[in-house]
Amino acid sequence: MDALQLLKKDKHQFINELMELLRIKSISTDVSYKSEITRAADYLKNKLKIAGVDFAEVIQTNGHPIVYAEKINDPSMPTVLVYGHYDVQPPDPVELWESPPFEPEIRNGKIHARGASDDKGQLYIHIKAFEILMRTNSLKCNVKFLIEGEEEIGSINLRPFVRNNKEKLACDTIIVSDTAMIDSDTPSITVGLRGMSYLEVELTGANRDLHSGIYGGAVPNPINELCRIIASLHDEDGKINISGFYNQVLELSEEQKKELQRIPFNAETYKSDLGLKKIKGENGYTTIERIGYRPTLDVNGIWAGYTGEGKKTVIPAKAFAKISARLVPNQSSEEISKLIISHLKRITPEHLQIKVKKLQGSEFALMPADSDASLSASKAFEKAWGKKPIHTRGGGGISIVTLFQNELNIDPILMGFGLDEDALHSPNESFSLYNFTRGIETVLYFYKYYSDIYKNDNTSI
Amino acid sequence: MDALQLLKKDKHQFINELMELLRIKSISTDVSYKSEITRAADYLKNKLKIAGVDFAEVIQTNGHPIVYAEKINDPSMPTVLVYGHYDVQPPDPVELWESPPFEPEIRNGKIHARGASDDKGQLYIHIKAFEILMRTNSLKCNVKFLIEGEEEIGSINLRPFVRNNKEKLACDTIIVSDTAMIDSDTPSITVGLRGMSYLEVELTGANRDLHSGIYGGAVPNPINELCRIIASLHDEDGKINISGFYNQVLELSEEQKKELQRIPFNAETYKSDLGLKKIKGENGYTTIERIGYRPTLDVNGIWAGYTGEGKKTVIPAKAFAKISARLVPNQSSEEISKLIISHLKRITPEHLQIKVKKLQGSEFALMPADSDASLSASKAFEKAWGKKPIHTRGGGGISIVTLFQNELNIDPILMGFGLDEDALHSPNESFSLYNFTRGIETVLYFYKYYSDIYKNDNTSI
Repeated sequence: MDALQLLKKDKHQFINELMELLRIKSISTDVSYKSEITRAADYLKNKLKIAGVDFAEVIQTNGHPIVYAEKINDPSMPTVLVYGHYDVQPPDPVELWESPPFEPEIRNGKIHARGASDDKGQLYIHIKAFEILMRTNSLKCNVKFLIEGEEEIGSINLRPFVRNNKEKLACDTIIVSDTAMIDSDTPSITVGLRGMSYLEVELTGANRDLHSGIYGGAVPNPINELCRIIASLHDEDGKINISGFYNQVLELSEEQKKELQRIPFNAETYKSDLGLKKIKGENGYTTIERIGYRPTLDVNGIWAGYTGEGKKTVIPAKAFAKISARLVPNQSSEEISKLIISHLKRITPEHLQIKVKKLQGSEFALMPADSDASLSASKAFEKAWGKKPIHTRGGGGISIVTLFQNELNIDPILMGFGLDEDALHSPNESFSLYNFTRGIETVLYFYKYYSDIYKNDNTSI
Repeated sequence: MDALQLLKKDKHQFINELMELLRIKSISTDVSYKSEITRAADYLKNKLKIAGVDFAEVIQTNGHPIVYAEKINDPSMPTVLVYGHYDVQPPDPVELWESPPFEPEIRNGKIHARGASDDKGQLYIHIKAFEILMRTNSLKCNVKFLIEGEEEIGSINLRPFVRNNKEKLACDTIIVSDTAMIDSDTPSITVGLRGMSYLEVELTGANRDLHSGIYGGAVPNPINELCRIIASLHDEDGKINISGFYNQVLELSEEQKKELQRIPFNAETYKSDLGLKKIKGENGYTTIERIGYRPTLDVNGIWAGYTGEGKKTVIPAKAFAKISARLVPNQSSEEISKLIISHLKRITPEHLQIKVKKLQGSEFALMPADSDASLSASKAFEKAWGKKPIHTRGGGGISIVTLFQNELNIDPILMGFGLDEDALHSPNESFSLYNFTRGIETVLYFYKYYSDIYKNDNTSI
């Protein structure tokens, strides 16, 4: 029985296994979920063993554990390292979920759960594709699995692990499925990612909360002042108002702009999907350009004063905000964080005190589209989806991509099977079952074409 | 044994009773404290009975109950109505309290607890002064107690109660102790209060939370936009940027400005008490003027996006703020709320939706300083504190003051015994024990002088 028939036969079983994985609340940002993190790691270790690896292990770190497994099939053949992450974002605001975030529910062809697309669903594609190749005895190359539990918190402990295990992780290519396709008919390979500087700001006025009647009008209000500071960070054109912020940004060439116009984009669909009357962004750039090729500055959270039911007439002592910038070639996260911090300190009026804490920094990444592995991935997409994949740049960052580039000197191939409508990091995150099975098919083709380059062998899959 | 001796003898007992009252978590803004509200009302009813009223009752309303009691001593004598409230503000942020908010603790001469000064401590002064007069048989006039449980939420149900019980509440003067003195040596009578318009704003961008990588730069961010809107509400001079906002404001006369300069105010002490390097407010006005005579606009709370530990790369669908304006003669809360709401709607860009909810409105109040009751209060302060009280305007609002003016045609006398350092509505709220006992003494003198005006009788107290 060949690989595709086996996929067809067992896909429901595969989906059930994924749903089991999605029931595990592996939220990495919140320490109180530690035991769920461990459960997720053990679950994957066992599934990898069943799939047929030589060995699988859960490796403890200073943070959340790493799952590693490998199958050395034929040392003369190339080795594929598959990266994924089992940790997920917090589900809040929980009240906006139609079904509980950790009780996966299938509605019109999609699994709804936190982590469905980011990244458990996409990761599981690879485990099942590998299993099929093993069961049909059609794996030609070698495979290593590296699965972390800290992607959503900056892969803090993966970095030293990769640095100290270059032998163990030695490979010819790295496959990462943690990105989205352009749309359900249009596969894409992401060849660029934005970096990030993520900061937390604490603005302090008086030494205690004050009654807004007794003090209102006579003392600085940290909320109003924080709003004033944040409002000043963009100008009327939607440009970021921090001197030096754009110095290292590579402008798009006319050629690039033309190339980008080939990407199907329908502003009306985009707006109606988001429920927006109007799109807003940096003047002079298209939406595609704004997302992939331009840096941004967004407030991701703000809190101060009384936020409960009813009213409280208070002028709080402190106001807080989480602010992040998305970075493009050739901006350095280190430099941009410094720029933003010193700018914020400079513009803070003397009747207030500001503290800025760096929560994360990650670098932009660019990957070539013409390597053996990248070409094999393109062929695999074309075969499985009947359409050549488009090479795009993603707006999000995957800090591990630069990690692999720097430590292992390998440009990962980003074979994304997600969709914009998957609502990553949002309530009702979902993953299309069609993409799940079609994704497995794509990965099966990838292994075939990639192996064929090295050994001309036409075992059909 | 005369009244002052009795006060000296029993003051510790009085303080213990107050501490019992302060242990009751009568937070009116949060329905989950309903049973504590009832406990507070019952506690006061019993203490009033013990103090010697003819009768005391807990009267149910559509919200929190009202405690009413009366002593008709001599129908030929005037009747004093004492108003107070037993409800308190929420204690958050609880982590900033040095001792738990509802476990009163005496530290360097002050009781620390939520409600210590606002208003349980000040209210209890009147109950004990009354008790002393009864026990020493030196009450000459009639007394009525009206104590509500909804002052911190706008006295919603007191309004209809007063309207429907004008007979029952008929009196010659109303005493309210819910304000502060200028400082511990300088008594004051508040003859003006600011009104308020309190609003809640909900700003909506996309129909769901979005990943800041995949959408950042291409969609409006409600947090950034809310900050922009809030920042635009004040100009560089600290004036409120809403057309028409100042139209009804009475400017201070040169005479008033001079009179106000008599109020002791030390900017250095004020700043160091608040831990501020610099005071900020509307240009061209002193701190005293800014607080008592000028309107303000403050954000009292703001919340949106991810506010937990660590980072979440989200662009939220919604951002919220609680915004309140303090109003002065002759601004109408109704009109100003309308002005602010229509202004906010006008300046909201079309890529967002805004909803504004009115949480409360209350009117400014002015009281004459030369009525019999007011003059008696002045004399009482002078006798007890050795200093003529200064007539000031309070920055806060007491919505019931206008209620009494409108429904009972009586200007309440605001005999405040609190201090700025009491930290009303803040963590570590406190009330000076010295002011507590000295307050009782002051009220004893008030009854004496006020009664003397009607019946020349020199029973010493």
